[in-house]
Amino acid sequence: MKPASASRRRLLAASAALGAHVWVPRGVKGYATADVSRALQGSTPAGTSKWDLDTPALCVDLDRLERNIAGMQAAVKRFGLATRPHAKTHKSADIAKLQLAAGAIGICCAKLGEAEALAAQGVDRLCMTTSNVSPAKIRRAMQLRKRSPTFIQAVDTEENARDLSEAAREAGVVADVVVDVAVGTRTGVPPGEDALQVARLVDRLPSLRLRGLLSYDGGAQHVNGFAARKARALAGIQPNADTYEAMKKAGLATEIFSGGGTGTYNIQHLVPGFTDVQVGSYVFMDMQYLAIGSEDGNPVYADFAPSLTVVATVLNNRFPGRLTTDAGAKALTLNAPRAGVVGEPGAEYAATSDEFGVISFKEGPTRSYAIGDRLEMIVPHCDPVVNLYDVMYGIRGDRVERVIPVTARGRSQ
Amino acid sequence: MKPASASRRRLLAASAALGAHVWVPRGVKGYATADVSRALQGSTPAGTSKWDLDTPALCVDLDRLERNIAGMQAAVKRFGLATRPHAKTHKSADIAKLQLAAGAIGICCAKLGEAEALAAQGVDRLCMTTSNVSPAKIRRAMQLRKRSPTFIQAVDTEENARDLSEAAREAGVVADVVVDVAVGTRTGVPPGEDALQVARLVDRLPSLRLRGLLSYDGGAQHVNGFAARKARALAGIQPNADTYEAMKKAGLATEIFSGGGTGTYNIQHLVPGFTDVQVGSYVFMDMQYLAIGSEDGNPVYADFAPSLTVVATVLNNRFPGRLTTDAGAKALTLNAPRAGVVGEPGAEYAATSDEFGVISFKEGPTRSYAIGDRLEMIVPHCDPVVNLYDVMYGIRGDRVERVIPVTARGRSQ
Repeated sequence: MKPASASRRRLLAASAALGAHVWVPRGVKGYATADVSRALQGSTPAGTSKWDLDTPALCVDLDRLERNIAGMQAAVKRFGLATRPHAKTHKSADIAKLQLAAGAIGICCAKLGEAEALAAQGVDRLCMTTSNVSPAKIRRAMQLRKRSPTFIQAVDTEENARDLSEAAREAGVVADVVVDVAVGTRTGVPPGEDALQVARLVDRLPSLRLRGLLSYDGGAQHVNGFAARKARALAGIQPNADTYEAMKKAGLATEIFSGGGTGTYNIQHLVPGFTDVQVGSYVFMDMQYLAIGSEDGNPVYADFAPSLTVVATVLNNRFPGRLTTDAGAKALTLNAPRAGVVGEPGAEYAATSDEFGVISFKEGPTRSYAIGDRLEMIVPHCDPVVNLYDVMYGIRGDRVERVIPVTARGRSQ
Repeated sequence: MKPASASRRRLLAASAALGAHVWVPRGVKGYATADVSRALQGSTPAGTSKWDLDTPALCVDLDRLERNIAGMQAAVKRFGLATRPHAKTHKSADIAKLQLAAGAIGICCAKLGEAEALAAQGVDRLCMTTSNVSPAKIRRAMQLRKRSPTFIQAVDTEENARDLSEAAREAGVVADVVVDVAVGTRTGVPPGEDALQVARLVDRLPSLRLRGLLSYDGGAQHVNGFAARKARALAGIQPNADTYEAMKKAGLATEIFSGGGTGTYNIQHLVPGFTDVQVGSYVFMDMQYLAIGSEDGNPVYADFAPSLTVVATVLNNRFPGRLTTDAGAKALTLNAPRAGVVGEPGAEYAATSDEFGVISFKEGPTRSYAIGDRLEMIVPHCDPVVNLYDVMYGIRGDRVERVIPVTARGRSQ
């Protein structure tokens, strides 16, 4: 861990990472989603300006998004790995399809409702990384497997494997299964003999087909500094690597050995047998990831560019040293570190109120802000922010090129 | 402020406030919303058990909800006030209608999108408590006023009043307006001469009709202990009370003097001229409000009963001293204090992961929990939790009586 001042410098650098603030004239239009969609279908092919959107507006810079996707594919290819990006981050069928088109071998889902919503929009090669434990959910998963033959389901207990096999038989399918082997103490079966028992049972059960194992280490992703992150990630996964070897030795299927994330995408290839990374946040980035630092010692994690922002409107400038905006916790969440104000590295953004954001300034502001002016924020943590919005605006330059539905928004079941 | 141990005792008491945990057998059904809606229309009038819902499930106990609404109406009647409940809490047309049917004189909205969504479902007497500052939003507000003649709009600057009058003229209406007078430094025009200037202008402008003033003090609502809360609320609103008197003396309309919330509903009547309270959370309650203490010295704020819960499923019990559930930050938010586990006052609920909750035990657990078991949580802070769900289940006893749409979910614009 670094001292607070270094951490502060990281954040200052991170909040400046999206470049200078664009001056926005007063009297912006404030178009709602329906207006924007109409404009895209109509006679204004250039699209609406992002500064003219009704706010709070969730925006994704398409150039950066595409570069992030291409950059990740190129990187893991060098490492001899594949990507199986996690859709819990974007919850978007459109973005999942971009990832698959770029070469991803599959798409992970955290919740069954998420997988169902994406499959309904034509996303295939889905891998559900959480076990389903209620009878209805196990059945629904196997109905999804029936509709989407490339679906893979995680299991983490012997009882769950038996229930799943029964539901697969009922659905008339042989289901592809991976064993979720715990890294840490949150989900999954502990590595070693416990995991092997589950794997052996899956291998034996008539309606299941063992494909390998998952080993996601959520706790390693945000460790500050590359060296510390690498040490933590490799130590954490060692028991799982041993389990992989034992499965292989026992003749069990190990064609999938999947895990890792945006923080460890360039570390996981050091684990023998590892096949693919479940990277999520790299498409958008956020203040949390920007602060963890790059392999080259850059305090800002600059491997991927922040593409996801929330545009907000200044509602009040009457009180000295502060601005009130229309983006509070219902628009930006309470995650730490706080939102970064683009072009105002000395700003502190408090989204502690549900409906309003309050910006105070440790340095600056760089200019005066009038009521109605727009400000753009890098989000604290991308996954839960995306989950608050029905759509994100796909921006090219400063124009809306497409309206991207958040297909699985709220699908936490 | 009380020492930490008293605060801890408050929370322990609060988390026990919903009564004992109900034993839930394994093999619960896990019905999704569509299943539940079908069951309500079909041959099972008794409805689905709340323990059989797919999880995380947002549930509201209808007996408690109705008692909270009736209790608030009775209380403010004794104080000589009315209610104008805030819909930012429930975002539900159905619950707004219950409040109006019980005698509320109006319904407040924080965002224009919220007001539009509720109006589209037949809720009238809406009062938008935030000024709209973009041209499109000002126009939309006046179109809403045209469709819904009882709509009232807040303004807080002279320029905004002029823009609104112009938009009202364009829409062919004379718009009812209240001046939002700041308590604190978040929104509104400062009390005193600044506020009077806005009020005088609204009174003069041809397409506006002044109705009075708003004075909401968000900072006073969660002050711990009744005496401290009362002192803070009355001191905070004094400049606004003076502004009210000055407006009255100047012959300006003051028929609305509105503010206050669940924490100060029994304090606001001490402000001369005050007309109605913008109470929101009282319908549901949450861990934040349960901890502030009652007027009678009860460390638990027991004036209203906690009616809103999230039912979650145990996904993992393999790791000593902890349980993993399927309700993380996307189901419960990161608000503090943390969720209270019903019937397990010694439990600590961490929803710090997006997808998973982790329960650890300072005391207890009172029984062993198997994978698939259900647990019920009182939410940390009701407003942002409701905003995560498309529906809440209206529960009578332990049966689903109705599926209540969260009409304005995500309408943060």
